[in-house]
Amino acid sequence: MPTWEDLVPAARDIISRATKANVMIATAESCTGGLIAGILTEISGSSAVVDRGFVTYSNEAKQDMLGVSGSTLDTYGAVSHRAAAEMADGALARSRAAITVAVTGIAGPGGGSEAKPVGTVYFGLAIKGRQTETFVEHFGDRGREQVRLLTVQNALKLVSNAINSST
Amino acid sequence: MPTWEDLVPAARDIISRATKANVMIATAESCTGGLIAGILTEISGSSAVVDRGFVTYSNEAKQDMLGVSGSTLDTYGAVSHRAAAEMADGALARSRAAITVAVTGIAGPGGGSEAKPVGTVYFGLAIKGRQTETFVEHFGDRGREQVRLLTVQNALKLVSNAINSST
Repeated sequence: MPTWEDLVPAARDIISRATKANVMIATAESCTGGLIAGILTEISGSSAVVDRGFVTYSNEAKQDMLGVSGSTLDTYGAVSHRAAAEMADGALARSRAAITVAVTGIAGPGGGSEAKPVGTVYFGLAIKGRQTETFVEHFGDRGREQVRLLTVQNALKLVSNAINSST
Repeated sequence: MPTWEDLVPAARDIISRATKANVMIATAESCTGGLIAGILTEISGSSAVVDRGFVTYSNEAKQDMLGVSGSTLDTYGAVSHRAAAEMADGALARSRAAITVAVTGIAGPGGGSEAKPVGTVYFGLAIKGRQTETFVEHFGDRGREQVRLLTVQNALKLVSNAINSST
């Protein structure tokens, strides 16, 4: 079970390598509500590579700020591969970043369903010039704080791998 | 010196009272990089009242996402009363929120100057139908993490007071 402090070294490594690679990062966050951008900017010098973050907590925010389509939200829901992909793509199109990570999931304790229980989180990863990828993780009903921290941890892993592959 | 856990009760109180008052909140964050939205959304049920957050870490993000003017950034700088006011106003105009809080400051360890030393943070508070207010705090050079947490703490106080005054 990670703590915030446990995740800081991963953030530090990302800022260091993104700076060397001259790659900017942006985030699009629903269930983490800003914590991914929050931990990246914990690192001194992050302003060189963290361009911006979109905290799209409501469906309206996902549409207004990131261009997620109403039909995606109606058909697949905000917690879906498709929504995660559109969030990551929207952040890439609306920033100076070359790498964007998007997260949308069910942190709990409410909001779960049989198909998408608490702890289900979809991730979108967009890299300029590449096909956008999505992933799903099932963290289980471990409490809201832990689901959010596990989501931050996994998002940092995706961004870290993306820096390797984009350079 | 507050810890993250110390600030959670204030966030819980805000979500509870905003829900009762049926008031939505949005954030516009520079130096805190998403932590204000992050702590508000730590609370279960926050989706009813947290609409969105703008993490405008770069100057370009402040202009693109919140409509902060280039002349404000050139004349007063991103860390100024004027920039904080325009960030709060921009978030109000670009969301469904009735209360927005904006923060822009120097978390350190670099970036300080004689006029604006490390620990200087400007706050903007916009309430629908009211005159936007700005405030400045001088937290001192206590380390990046503490400056950011003190900034989150003060932003939560401003939002808490705003809920009282807006209802």
